[in-house]
Amino acid sequence: MVRQVRAVRTRGALVRAAAEVFAEDGYALASLPVISRRAGVSTGALHFHFPSKDLLAREVETAATVSVQRLVVREGAGGGGLQLLVDVSRDLVAALAVDPVLRAGFELGGDPSRKSAEGPGRWWCEWVHALLREAQGAGELARGVSPEAAAVAVVASVAGFGRLASRHRVRSSSRLLEQFWALLLPGLAAPSRRRPVLPGPRAAGTDRTPR
Amino acid sequence: MVRQVRAVRTRGALVRAAAEVFAEDGYALASLPVISRRAGVSTGALHFHFPSKDLLAREVETAATVSVQRLVVREGAGGGGLQLLVDVSRDLVAALAVDPVLRAGFELGGDPSRKSAEGPGRWWCEWVHALLREAQGAGELARGVSPEAAAVAVVASVAGFGRLASRHRVRSSSRLLEQFWALLLPGLAAPSRRRPVLPGPRAAGTDRTPR
Repeated sequence: MVRQVRAVRTRGALVRAAAEVFAEDGYALASLPVISRRAGVSTGALHFHFPSKDLLAREVETAATVSVQRLVVREGAGGGGLQLLVDVSRDLVAALAVDPVLRAGFELGGDPSRKSAEGPGRWWCEWVHALLREAQGAGELARGVSPEAAAVAVVASVAGFGRLASRHRVRSSSRLLEQFWALLLPGLAAPSRRRPVLPGPRAAGTDRTPR
Repeated sequence: MVRQVRAVRTRGALVRAAAEVFAEDGYALASLPVISRRAGVSTGALHFHFPSKDLLAREVETAATVSVQRLVVREGAGGGGLQLLVDVSRDLVAALAVDPVLRAGFELGGDPSRKSAEGPGRWWCEWVHALLREAQGAGELARGVSPEAAAVAVVASVAGFGRLASRHRVRSSSRLLEQFWALLLPGLAAPSRRRPVLPGPRAAGTDRTPR
């Protein structure tokens, strides 16, 4: 039992250290000895848990994908599709700011030396596409809006705000994301429907009306 | 004279081949022998023109930055800031689809194994920021719009459409970009001002009114 707990901790430390090193050096140059040293474990322990760098990168991608899926499930869909998208985007930008594994999972997908088609980026992109198509079907989108163009804009912009969030303070990138939605929603949402509430800090007690 | 012409051609072939190999393998794994073979020149000629991989990458970045600057200059600013932004974004997405040097210039900026702060991405990002701040000063933006949030959205989305354009057909990504602007402009542009004409194909003879 104690050994199992220790193994789980070691795996977690390795995944986190790998995520940090992938982000700093890229997949191709990331060195397994550097990763094991940063995780505070022996190279033998690293090879026991992850026989190859590819398997370590897959674990980072899987962990990151599960994190995004948890954000989506946690928010639920009570307020309709667009509200869910606004809320999840806020949670995702905040999580990207503080979670190196989530960040590395997204970045590995765009690393030309890795060529991975799996990972959170693909899942998130498909989820946003599907949600916007459904929102269109439910009459939530303004007439003539292309769910595909909106999906590219949302996915690309959220990634942009997430990168800013990891470099600067979280709060300023949350404010930028709120301003992004204030910019996009007039063109995106059907005027006849109640417009989604803009994403303030998650703990905010009172609803805010969109500007 | 003949020798100079040949030298210019050789440099051009090397820069183009390097751009393709950087895009395929990433900066860290890109191999100089592969690049010289693809350019159809000897490794000796490669080393004569570019003594290091870093210098070759810088040449790709410089060439790509000059390409973006040319697009901006070519469009001029007769129709105001937002119209210029719409027009340049159309030209840039179209150019990203067909120009591997331009594409690689942008991608090198995000390659963690390269860590380059120069290149077209930074220039373009600062240009879009400055243009939107000026447009705000000139009363072109809707009240309360954040030029910073709009700049992140535009830069990130144009990069997203550019990536799509290189993988799929150019025309479908131009259409998506047009739909993106149709989505963004209602929230971005001051309602009292003439709204920019949406970006159709560059050669279109007649102005089109925004939908």
